[in-house]
Amino acid sequence: MTTMMKAALVREFGRPLAIEEVPVPEPRPDQILVRIAATGVCHTDLHAARGDWPVKPKPPFIPGHEGVGIVAAVGRDVKRVREGDRVGIPWLHTACGYCPHCRTGWETLCGSQQNTGYSVNGSFAEYAVADPNYVGRLPDTLDFGPAAPVLCAGVTVYKGLKETEVKPGEWVVISGIGGLGHMAVQYAKAMGMRVAAIDVHPEKLKLARTLGAEIAINAREADPVHELQKTIGGAHGVLVTAVSPAAFEQAFGVLRPHGTMALVGLPPGKFAMPIFDTVLKRITVRGSIVGTRQDLEEALDFAGQGAVAAHFSWDKLENINQIFERMEAGQIDGRIVLQMQ
Amino acid sequence: MTTMMKAALVREFGRPLAIEEVPVPEPRPDQILVRIAATGVCHTDLHAARGDWPVKPKPPFIPGHEGVGIVAAVGRDVKRVREGDRVGIPWLHTACGYCPHCRTGWETLCGSQQNTGYSVNGSFAEYAVADPNYVGRLPDTLDFGPAAPVLCAGVTVYKGLKETEVKPGEWVVISGIGGLGHMAVQYAKAMGMRVAAIDVHPEKLKLARTLGAEIAINAREADPVHELQKTIGGAHGVLVTAVSPAAFEQAFGVLRPHGTMALVGLPPGKFAMPIFDTVLKRITVRGSIVGTRQDLEEALDFAGQGAVAAHFSWDKLENINQIFERMEAGQIDGRIVLQMQ
Amino acid sequence: MTTMMKAALVREFGRPLAIEEVPVPEPRPDQILVRIAATGVCHTDLHAARGDWPVKPKPPFIPGHEGVGIVAAVGRDVKRVREGDRVGIPWLHTACGYCPHCRTGWETLCGSQQNTGYSVNGSFAEYAVADPNYVGRLPDTLDFGPAAPVLCAGVTVYKGLKETEVKPGEWVVISGIGGLGHMAVQYAKAMGMRVAAIDVHPEKLKLARTLGAEIAINAREADPVHELQKTIGGAHGVLVTAVSPAAFEQAFGVLRPHGTMALVGLPPGKFAMPIFDTVLKRITVRGSIVGTRQDLEEALDFAGQGAVAAHFSWDKLENINQIFERMEAGQIDGRIVLQMQ
Amino acid sequence: MTTMMKAALVREFGRPLAIEEVPVPEPRPDQILVRIAATGVCHTDLHAARGDWPVKPKPPFIPGHEGVGIVAAVGRDVKRVREGDRVGIPWLHTACGYCPHCRTGWETLCGSQQNTGYSVNGSFAEYAVADPNYVGRLPDTLDFGPAAPVLCAGVTVYKGLKETEVKPGEWVVISGIGGLGHMAVQYAKAMGMRVAAIDVHPEKLKLARTLGAEIAINAREADPVHELQKTIGGAHGVLVTAVSPAAFEQAFGVLRPHGTMALVGLPPGKFAMPIFDTVLKRITVRGSIVGTRQDLEEALDFAGQGAVAAHFSWDKLENINQIFERMEAGQIDGRIVLQMQ
Repeated sequence: MTTMMKAALVREFGRPLAIEEVPVPEPRPDQILVRIAATGVCHTDLHAARGDWPVKPKPPFIPGHEGVGIVAAVGRDVKRVREGDRVGIPWLHTACGYCPHCRTGWETLCGSQQNTGYSVNGSFAEYAVADPNYVGRLPDTLDFGPAAPVLCAGVTVYKGLKETEVKPGEWVVISGIGGLGHMAVQYAKAMGMRVAAIDVHPEKLKLARTLGAEIAINAREADPVHELQKTIGGAHGVLVTAVSPAAFEQAFGVLRPHGTMALVGLPPGKFAMPIFDTVLKRITVRGSIVGTRQDLEEALDFAGQGAVAAHFSWDKLENINQIFERMEAGQIDGRIVLQMQ
Repeated sequence: MTTMMKAALVREFGRPLAIEEVPVPEPRPDQILVRIAATGVCHTDLHAARGDWPVKPKPPFIPGHEGVGIVAAVGRDVKRVREGDRVGIPWLHTACGYCPHCRTGWETLCGSQQNTGYSVNGSFAEYAVADPNYVGRLPDTLDFGPAAPVLCAGVTVYKGLKETEVKPGEWVVISGIGGLGHMAVQYAKAMGMRVAAIDVHPEKLKLARTLGAEIAINAREADPVHELQKTIGGAHGVLVTAVSPAAFEQAFGVLRPHGTMALVGLPPGKFAMPIFDTVLKRITVRGSIVGTRQDLEEALDFAGQGAVAAHFSWDKLENINQIFERMEAGQIDGRIVLQMQ
Repeated sequence: MTTMMKAALVREFGRPLAIEEVPVPEPRPDQILVRIAATGVCHTDLHAARGDWPVKPKPPFIPGHEGVGIVAAVGRDVKRVREGDRVGIPWLHTACGYCPHCRTGWETLCGSQQNTGYSVNGSFAEYAVADPNYVGRLPDTLDFGPAAPVLCAGVTVYKGLKETEVKPGEWVVISGIGGLGHMAVQYAKAMGMRVAAIDVHPEKLKLARTLGAEIAINAREADPVHELQKTIGGAHGVLVTAVSPAAFEQAFGVLRPHGTMALVGLPPGKFAMPIFDTVLKRITVRGSIVGTRQDLEEALDFAGQGAVAAHFSWDKLENINQIFERMEAGQIDGRIVLQMQ
Repeated sequence: MTTMMKAALVREFGRPLAIEEVPVPEPRPDQILVRIAATGVCHTDLHAARGDWPVKPKPPFIPGHEGVGIVAAVGRDVKRVREGDRVGIPWLHTACGYCPHCRTGWETLCGSQQNTGYSVNGSFAEYAVADPNYVGRLPDTLDFGPAAPVLCAGVTVYKGLKETEVKPGEWVVISGIGGLGHMAVQYAKAMGMRVAAIDVHPEKLKLARTLGAEIAINAREADPVHELQKTIGGAHGVLVTAVSPAAFEQAFGVLRPHGTMALVGLPPGKFAMPIFDTVLKRITVRGSIVGTRQDLEEALDFAGQGAVAAHFSWDKLENINQIFERMEAGQIDGRIVLQMQ
């Protein structure tokens, strides 16, 4: 086996990533080594590389948390996976396994969790180590390319949709039809929900309709609150993937009484929640953070059955800095996936 | 039967109520007439009398929505209650009975609801009409005095506690130990919850301890967020009965990951919800509006069993304007109940 | 308006129904009169006509509880519906509206309920009275023919599927692909479930596949328990529409740990529930009874969107006795709908 | 440290246990060694010693799964617990940590689980090894004696009560007030439920009343079904700890519509579930198997707060065969706890 690999490293916050040859990492007895076939590029990678968030990663480190590939080696204590298995390494690299959150199926809230491409090295590399108990297993029917975005974008919106508590036959609004939102439309349909989409770009609204949205509203041309209250009496739930404060307030307004708003984005600042309406209409606002192992398995299953397919374009590791620039400029449509082999 | 009765009327918003002799109202065939024995005074009555809220009542009208008494007459189509029954007339005077909210046990969200002492005359009078299908039945073991505050204050906090989704054995924080909060402590204990109380008055905190709170924090002397995160790792839920924006932010901060904050108060303005923490900790913020008929029945049951007893002081209808003045000045402790007979 | 109508009456249990001219019923002030366009024939009608069940209807009476049509007259107190509205009259004719079951969205358990075609006259007639608050509203896109079977068969299996607590993406087994089962397959798909079908007739299994079942097992040729445990590790839920004791035991066996079995059929006798497996696998067995008004609205919505279409054949009222004979002989496939106009 | 210890071994099914000196077991790097202070004796130990169940343990083995004590040694990979910690070793010795059940907080259904005193050696010994991630942590306020029965009897009924889905203020019936039932009464009260007890021994019913049951029915003197339907309209839930078929049928009958029956006992055979009533009343029957780590933590917490105290009598390991004999003869009241030091 090769002992060196190509990787993109953050050596200093805010500086371009360095494409370097570094040693292939060695898995501990309870870990596995994954040969990365493809890895998606997420906004979180950009935040990591800039050191944007309060708790920061420690350079040098390798970002990337949508890596999928083939197990190249397994530690001697590993039972769950074997060499040759097709797996994905999600943001939730590992967790303690016994705290109140871990033992109730909420390991995403574990205070001892490690995060891929953040507190431990990620998948912007030819190889990455992983915890076999926290990787997702890829369905045979799912290629590496479309699998990658499920690892973070897909599972995040899938979980967010669950958190809206919208049931089959009820209405959900997807606010923002970008990399996350276009997958959300598909997951919502697969879950039996009726979908209304909000965006400001006609082509994204067109895409939403193609993917199954029955209503698509251009927020620059019409008031989504007025439209949705009039036509469907307000929605049972809304998933906000857009990150502008205006989008948050609008999302709140499209709900019917007893409705739930789920947030998955992380815009800076606060959301000004109208107290009177919240109380009189019994509105619920809830944050949703990625997804658990169970959520990931389900999200991958839906993709494996063909119910959900991410729109993505292939790129390569060497272009990561240009990709980040385009991301910052809001020029990326759908998802970028890096072909690693 | 007498044909005239004493009542307190709002004749003009913002002016003192008029104590007058008015005709005893006549129940429709599907209504009942209740001889009011006691009626609590709620902050909402004050808002009604001042015309504070967007949708206003139409003067002249009789406020009061915590009225309890004895059924004096029943309309010819009424089956559920009989003359002599002991009942209470809640804020939710009546609802349509078939809309999506009504048919799913959420009649408090019915768009066609009538509200006692607001859109229809209330219980600041010797008699009031009621919908037999929406009155609460008073347990035999519950006197009129302590029953009155259950009709609104009691059921509101009881429902709010349910909405926190805190389960027996888990921690709930009650923020504000006033007329609502001191009942909330008791309901929470009866529901098997562990209780921490927050207030700024030592005597209220002492009361909270007497009623079963294991922790009582004076927010002027210690930081509740720091204290509760340190001692119990944050609470599973928090019920905010205090109405200051500061109390709202504090309440948010005492939650552990996966926690839920329920709001029952109606301070003007908005609540600045921190997005980052909401998402990363999967926090839920939810409004809660009074309680359904089922909630009311349960809230009355707990009181009837002696698990919950409102602290109240008797007063009389003629003093309603002074009571309102003291209420506006924040000088009322516990609950005022008007003795009507 | 005509004052006489054609109807099929049970004059004596176990005797053929009489096709007679009887007076058109007159709605009370709180009722409506529906001109029946179509009405499905259900096994329950047969039980009613034979007086099979412990609590019996009182002859003479008109069976039929899948009647759909147009509102021909409304009582003076009726607000919810108008002349000309398209509605359906379900088994749950009316309920009290305030008992613990009614006020929590479980009016199907109301002890004071009336049942259409059983305790009150039903839809085997040109006209029937109904409670406007308990009729289903037909979507504009749904014709009378396919609407009729939704009123009982459809809503029953839809509710039963809900009661399995199977979530989108999980496996449900439909045991028995007859009049109920073939609708269950479609509802399950519309709700995002993965479906396995069990029957003993190849053509029914073929139908199930056409309607979206991924797995279809002929219980005469293979052991469903062995097959489903092997291929999918057992199902998350099972809906039993078959009525043989053998089918019940088989259904229990196809569950994975934590699975739920919902029963909607009413075979005489008892189900021998294996205690050891029930406990060690944490199995839930639950009865499900028709559906509430909310369930009916949802079931009709799915049909109106084209997600569910009952297979039925038209027949006429005059043939009701032959239809009953064929029903007893198990010769009916799908659903019979009587064309009334 | 000593290298030999006293233990009770099953050398052959159906034969008396042998009290022997055997080597102190050595923990693996991921295990801990617990010095047993006390261990409860459960009916399951008797079943294990007789090889009663389909999947049998392999003699020689040491039974016992209610062992509590102090951590005497920790493997080098262990992080969660330290030497000197007070812990309990439950029936669920360990589980895989990643299967669908483990990752959703249902590790009690894990197909790879090991069971203490059954598939691995248990606590009828001076020392036992344990998985640090699956032991219960004893509250400081809880002595070893009363802690032991919580490890199995306590957590089993606590979980069973949760599984009835009875909410605070609702009625639960505890059928059988023996070793399990008398703890169930206390847990139910602590959870805010109203309790009715059924037994055939006056002194047990008296105990139930002392522990908080409001109703206590001697099934030899009155018909519990008739009594409970008459006085409280049927119960919301029932927990069956009795193991006779008659008790099961009775338990079913005391439910109100929408009620739930939870089974924790393992009598041989089947439960004859009346289909008609199950469907028409929407009854749920559910098996409940011990409790998860979270359940155990909660069950211990309640005991630590003094809300639940097992009635037990001390005995010693050398008497285990006589204890088993008395157990078989139904002569044991409450719980036997072996003092090991």
